[in-house]
Amino acid sequence: MAVYTHLGAEELAELIAHYDVGDLVSAKGIAEGVSNSNWLLETTGGGEPGTRFILTMYERRIELRDLPFFLKLLDHLADKGCPVPRTIHDNTGAAFRMIDGKAVALIEYLPGVSVDHPTPGQAHSVGAALANNHLAVADFPETRWNDLGLAGWDNTLQNCGEEGLASIDPSLPAIVFPQLEAFAGDWPGGLPHGVVHCDLFPDNVLMLGDEVSGLIDFYFAATDFFAYDLAVTHAAWSFERGGKVYREDISNALLEGYQSVRPLSLAEIEAFPVLARGACMRFIASRAEDWLNTPDDAMVARKDPMDFVHRLRFYDEAGAKVFQGAR
Amino acid sequence: MAVYTHLGAEELAELIAHYDVGDLVSAKGIAEGVSNSNWLLETTGGGEPGTRFILTMYERRIELRDLPFFLKLLDHLADKGCPVPRTIHDNTGAAFRMIDGKAVALIEYLPGVSVDHPTPGQAHSVGAALANNHLAVADFPETRWNDLGLAGWDNTLQNCGEEGLASIDPSLPAIVFPQLEAFAGDWPGGLPHGVVHCDLFPDNVLMLGDEVSGLIDFYFAATDFFAYDLAVTHAAWSFERGGKVYREDISNALLEGYQSVRPLSLAEIEAFPVLARGACMRFIASRAEDWLNTPDDAMVARKDPMDFVHRLRFYDEAGAKVFQGAR
Repeated sequence: MAVYTHLGAEELAELIAHYDVGDLVSAKGIAEGVSNSNWLLETTGGGEPGTRFILTMYERRIELRDLPFFLKLLDHLADKGCPVPRTIHDNTGAAFRMIDGKAVALIEYLPGVSVDHPTPGQAHSVGAALANNHLAVADFPETRWNDLGLAGWDNTLQNCGEEGLASIDPSLPAIVFPQLEAFAGDWPGGLPHGVVHCDLFPDNVLMLGDEVSGLIDFYFAATDFFAYDLAVTHAAWSFERGGKVYREDISNALLEGYQSVRPLSLAEIEAFPVLARGACMRFIASRAEDWLNTPDDAMVARKDPMDFVHRLRFYDEAGAKVFQGAR
Repeated sequence: MAVYTHLGAEELAELIAHYDVGDLVSAKGIAEGVSNSNWLLETTGGGEPGTRFILTMYERRIELRDLPFFLKLLDHLADKGCPVPRTIHDNTGAAFRMIDGKAVALIEYLPGVSVDHPTPGQAHSVGAALANNHLAVADFPETRWNDLGLAGWDNTLQNCGEEGLASIDPSLPAIVFPQLEAFAGDWPGGLPHGVVHCDLFPDNVLMLGDEVSGLIDFYFAATDFFAYDLAVTHAAWSFERGGKVYREDISNALLEGYQSVRPLSLAEIEAFPVLARGACMRFIASRAEDWLNTPDDAMVARKDPMDFVHRLRFYDEAGAKVFQGAR
């Protein structure tokens, strides 16, 4: 959540000159993104001042490989009317440019704010927006292997090891390893799938009142089950921070909003409990890995893996009941 | 350069409701400020969308004591036509409010970008804007002791000690202590003074082309000599990053710009060399203190005190020559 690279006004102005967006009026480094730097730019646009863009600099080499995929996905979804930021192409038609060996992309600015404590109305809108994304990718021609899918967490958690996991919380190994074994048998196959967001937490949704004005940060997007993406979103939205307090009203509104656009099949509903446990494992795995690799005194906030252990326990106990309240 | 406190959309909306600025449309944490957190807010303003403000949260208690002074100064300068951000008062007329024990102020957003490599035209404008500030404070009724004046650096550098300074660079003690002794005799008295910025580095100036569109970050403002404030600005602008390359064209343009608005007296010109060395010592002192108090592996960038040692050496050798090229 920082700006990792300094870009002076002169470098920004030189960059902007390659786009048909007018002159630079303002540039503020913004505290968003974990592995990239972002600036909110204002330009004179088509003569009209106050045209805004987000400039993203991709700080890690690994993302560069996937960047054309991510930017194409944004353009595809925007073309279908989904509220995602469109990529601004430069005067040669390129979706990204290089500065000092790092890729940068100019992306549409969307209004809206991220909520901490969603209302049912907001959750309903998020569910509907997610379902619209799922319909919109039907003819998106690209695919991307989900590095953070079942095989990915399994690998990550095996690498953390019993001792490592126990050092985070003594209860963790006895929760994690039996789940991994269960997934090996229970994980569904053949559900409807496509390129999905995979990380739709509240801070990746911009809202104006009860309406979704933006879905952002698609840098985990990958080919996976639509119902898995819904399960990730459900796990991310339906609990208070800390993961111990389940909000049934949010859960119901989210599922209703989703199904108002794309009704789930019986197979998807039946798979939902294991997919939701999988969604929790995905975040337990990445957070456990970060936890073990971040020094105690580092100045970055580590996210507690136990937050998603609480959610995992909820799904384990609730089973199919999650859908009972949703119409 | 970070956002230290999380403020959710709900908290921001509740705050904004106390001001006559419409509804919240967007909020981005921005990477500015060292000891405070800042957000760029967009609201519906007076029915017109796209009205922007900077929200500052003061993270340190020490600033709260001085906050009324700083905010009054901004309003005073803005009233005189200086390009500084005006404070937005809440519906009860208060210039700041409290959230969870921390003060927050809503401040006017100004366009413009900070330059890394100023042109002479830009330096001329900065000099003129600084002089306008100095004229504008003639009837500002408040005063504030400069904690980071001569007595302040002396104290800071004595606390760092010979050993501490030598651990930063072996040459540092032999540079610092003789200067402190010289200041005791040479530091001028009785020059024109008032409340001055004291920290007008390029990143505290917003520019549109060659024009100054904003002077920001007045949180070091204090009562001191106008010529000392000019010396700080001169030391901050007239060298390339690193402090080893002097830019005579920038120096001349800055001094000419200043004197086009407020001609310096002979006493001020004569005092300039020692004031410029003092300006360098002020930054050597604070940077040395930060250097010694910041762990090597902390994730914050330490600024190199030697940068200002190079500038100090330049002023020591140049003496009165700095003014020769300026008309």
